[in-house]
Amino acid sequence: MSRKSRVSMAVIRRLPKYHRYLNELLNRDIKRISSKELSEIIGFTASQIRQDLNNFGGFGQQGYGYNVEELYNEIGKILGLDRGYNTIIIGAGNLGQALANYSNFEKFGFRCKAMFDVNPKLIGLKIRDIEIKDMDTLEEFLSETQIDIGIICTNKESAQLIADRLTSCGVTAIWNFAPVDLKVPDDVIVENVHLIESLLTLTYLYKEREEEES
Amino acid sequence: MSRKSRVSMAVIRRLPKYHRYLNELLNRDIKRISSKELSEIIGFTASQIRQDLNNFGGFGQQGYGYNVEELYNEIGKILGLDRGYNTIIIGAGNLGQALANYSNFEKFGFRCKAMFDVNPKLIGLKIRDIEIKDMDTLEEFLSETQIDIGIICTNKESAQLIADRLTSCGVTAIWNFAPVDLKVPDDVIVENVHLIESLLTLTYLYKEREEEES
Repeated sequence: MSRKSRVSMAVIRRLPKYHRYLNELLNRDIKRISSKELSEIIGFTASQIRQDLNNFGGFGQQGYGYNVEELYNEIGKILGLDRGYNTIIIGAGNLGQALANYSNFEKFGFRCKAMFDVNPKLIGLKIRDIEIKDMDTLEEFLSETQIDIGIICTNKESAQLIADRLTSCGVTAIWNFAPVDLKVPDDVIVENVHLIESLLTLTYLYKEREEEES
Repeated sequence: MSRKSRVSMAVIRRLPKYHRYLNELLNRDIKRISSKELSEIIGFTASQIRQDLNNFGGFGQQGYGYNVEELYNEIGKILGLDRGYNTIIIGAGNLGQALANYSNFEKFGFRCKAMFDVNPKLIGLKIRDIEIKDMDTLEEFLSETQIDIGIICTNKESAQLIADRLTSCGVTAIWNFAPVDLKVPDDVIVENVHLIESLLTLTYLYKEREEEES
């Protein structure tokens, strides 16, 4: 069982969306915005937005609305973006390489320090400046380099063992792409990206629409 | 605004998880299971499981529990897995290639018919047996081949235009990996995988844990 938050996950999952939309407003040089305008852009009700933000002390002023830059920075801080994170990627197949190549992550302060794989054909290669290391050297690497987030991009058969190895070396946050629910110590954070589950949500809606039409 | 379901999205998003766990039980040759046992394995309460399944007519018998194979098949049908889906991938970069290489999708009935890209170095290449075609030929391809799901793996700048092109050619379901909320006609289904939003959920929990510890 991984770590549970004191704020509801539904609220937490909306925060990155606020952050993204506020960033777009900033890029368009918009300085302030009412909760009503923000609600029209982002697609949540104004009351939802106020409630969400009240979890973190509340922002904005009656009659003025929100200062865009201030709110963007505050939400960034709430999301933990006022610091950087060292990451490693386990599994240097296509997905791992896609993530290593995704330079957008760096803008948010994520620094990928190494990738690991068991495939001799991949070991020693570099994706951008990130070296693919031998999986056997994982523990040695983790004893020398402080890593905040382990990103698991392996098959489901390997994922649990890798999670065990990461957590026993002190990695306390895992971004997991393997289609399995990892068992980790209580205080470890696991965030899953289950691609098949996302795709099956889509087919559910597809099927439901067909049934309504027929 | 894309299509809204009559069943709550929270319920729908749990269905693929039931499907996955039931598949594991089947593979372990387990024929029947009580809602209590299922709840221990899957991590939802037994009452949650009963409530979820009651949305679709209810399954299982008092005193017997669930027939694993029957429930697996029923949930598969509810998820629309009793048919196949033709897909195309737009954007043949690392992520698009990772998805094209992910043979797991085929087991669920997804057939990737083609990939599309604007990069001349990629056009004409094949990922497994899937050809990367010139983006300019998208409309021609769609007029000849019935495609159920368009998978968008481009940058955010291109994603909306591609969604417009897909929907105007009759593609009514989009699996979107670009970090943008697409505007589509009311009846089109959009399922997003917003990787950055997932990662920022993780950093939120990281930050919250640090604050509690300090």
